[in-house]
Amino acid sequence: MKNNNYGVIMAGGIGSRFWPMSTPEKPKQFLDILGLGKTLLQMTFERLEKVSLTENIYIVTNEKYKNLVKQQLPQIREEQILCEPQRKNTAPCIAYAASKIYSLNKEAVLVVSPSDHLIVKEDLFTKNIETAIKQSINNRIVTLGIQPTRPDTGYGYIEFNNKEENEVQEVKQFREKPTLELAKEFVAAGNFYWNSGIFIWKASTILSSLKEFTPELYNLFSIDNGFYNTISEQEKINLCFEKCEDISIDYAVMEQAKNVDVVLATFDWSDLGTWGSLYEHIPMDENKNAIVGKNVHLFNSKNCLINVPQNKKVLIEGLENYIVVEADDVLMILSMKNEQELKNYLKKIE
Amino acid sequence: MKNNNYGVIMAGGIGSRFWPMSTPEKPKQFLDILGLGKTLLQMTFERLEKVSLTENIYIVTNEKYKNLVKQQLPQIREEQILCEPQRKNTAPCIAYAASKIYSLNKEAVLVVSPSDHLIVKEDLFTKNIETAIKQSINNRIVTLGIQPTRPDTGYGYIEFNNKEENEVQEVKQFREKPTLELAKEFVAAGNFYWNSGIFIWKASTILSSLKEFTPELYNLFSIDNGFYNTISEQEKINLCFEKCEDISIDYAVMEQAKNVDVVLATFDWSDLGTWGSLYEHIPMDENKNAIVGKNVHLFNSKNCLINVPQNKKVLIEGLENYIVVEADDVLMILSMKNEQELKNYLKKIE
Repeated sequence: MKNNNYGVIMAGGIGSRFWPMSTPEKPKQFLDILGLGKTLLQMTFERLEKVSLTENIYIVTNEKYKNLVKQQLPQIREEQILCEPQRKNTAPCIAYAASKIYSLNKEAVLVVSPSDHLIVKEDLFTKNIETAIKQSINNRIVTLGIQPTRPDTGYGYIEFNNKEENEVQEVKQFREKPTLELAKEFVAAGNFYWNSGIFIWKASTILSSLKEFTPELYNLFSIDNGFYNTISEQEKINLCFEKCEDISIDYAVMEQAKNVDVVLATFDWSDLGTWGSLYEHIPMDENKNAIVGKNVHLFNSKNCLINVPQNKKVLIEGLENYIVVEADDVLMILSMKNEQELKNYLKKIE
Repeated sequence: MKNNNYGVIMAGGIGSRFWPMSTPEKPKQFLDILGLGKTLLQMTFERLEKVSLTENIYIVTNEKYKNLVKQQLPQIREEQILCEPQRKNTAPCIAYAASKIYSLNKEAVLVVSPSDHLIVKEDLFTKNIETAIKQSINNRIVTLGIQPTRPDTGYGYIEFNNKEENEVQEVKQFREKPTLELAKEFVAAGNFYWNSGIFIWKASTILSSLKEFTPELYNLFSIDNGFYNTISEQEKINLCFEKCEDISIDYAVMEQAKNVDVVLATFDWSDLGTWGSLYEHIPMDENKNAIVGKNVHLFNSKNCLINVPQNKKVLIEGLENYIVVEADDVLMILSMKNEQELKNYLKKIE
């Protein structure tokens, strides 16, 4: 059974919000951003190894990150790295991986996952995924929903028919990023979960859906073209990416399909979308300072997030509510309350 | 005339208040702390070259800094570097240099200067020194006094008989570091100047004074011992330093001598004793941020002192009244108001 399970890790993002640690040359998923001794990609890979064989886990990434993937996952074969020549959002990425894997195994079940999220309580993750895999066998499109802890306006929400208290629920509709007002209503209602971006489906199921809702995309990547697992695969794929539209899987399929279920996740999850979100996941000292770095000394300081290279000697005094990050040859000192402006500051200095 | 003028640069200090740029391995005088492209030692040397020949300028330093001096002043001969085997304050340092130079030239006039001060308007410095040299010919001990700009309790004060408005004044007495109350009185009185630690005297004059007030020290270093400019000089000097007391020239001579004059300095001066004092000497942007570093970008920030390596990319947002310094592999972020506690913080982390 496990032999039919495949992992598909989407690792092509550029993670601009984690500057200066995350750069276009080495984005967030390739970093040990929490100081755990493993990168987010490596942690994602290990999670999927619990539900599929090592040789069945594929990484889809930009071709310029191929060597980073090889370095960080030396246990995989080169064929397990699928290279996108350009960024075209999640639907082309999934069409490519699903088609390729389907051409290898018609019974394949895919667990599609972002590469740069944090998941704590991995045993619960495994359990949720096993439930989702079972559910997917009946040609269901399955997603993992995260119980919202705040009325966040940065996520899409999944509304489900909460008929019984089941781990699996039938999806009523996908709701795009809401206003704060609406987000508050969603959280209060109880049957709105965050869209985690983790999907479980048979390769045949998602290919059918792509054929139904985005036939052009489907045809471009179809196994009928006969190039998968041949010497010309990369060349053909490069052409597909040149021609295909830039479209998310949510928009292409999830919002239109009728056969969608959500598994209500029981693990702890963060998309680590900002430095602030990271702050919640690093152990804190008694003054609520979250520190990554082994030689960091704080005095009269609180509510700070410090992330510096392990052996960097740091003395900080009298600092409150700041993010201090050093990476490569860049230093950032940013007030937490203005973190959302980071992108704008970066534009100005580059 | 210039051939009888000698420079004596005291460069043995350890500059702990400028951590992390200044370290025991490379103290303040060996740093380009202002980002001018020259170290404080090099700037001091160049100032003295205006009043004495290059080959007449001697550097007294700890033996562990000998190579730093050689690197930074490649134009001098090795004999111009006098090595102290241990730190014994200024009187032994001066006794050594004065004796050695006197053994070479009985007419020598010495300009003794710390190596780690900042002097702006160097032409005025030259003029003041020339006045002091003239004055010293009549066996006077001459010091440079700095007009106080605030009631600083960290300096000694020189009280003088302000009979006429002369550039040179006869010293009434030296006053040790005062209380704030007393310092305010001194500043208001007008005839109290800061002791700059720059002294001008004939070698014969200061040696006579040492003989009179500290005969033991004088005898230890006396040229009658016959070791100067021989192969055994360093070995003998090491013994002298082992035996001699730890005593400042102020205490040993200045406070007791009757033949002391002060030249009222007209140049701008700072002893760069703290990061805060440095702040006043770096050009500021419109938000009163003083920045050393060519790739530093500040937003919503004011009254900050930033000192980082030239090519370090830095983004700082929302910071007010802080000192941010990066040097070697150390980062310091310190609130300006607590700068005087830096020594204590360093003790705790070392």
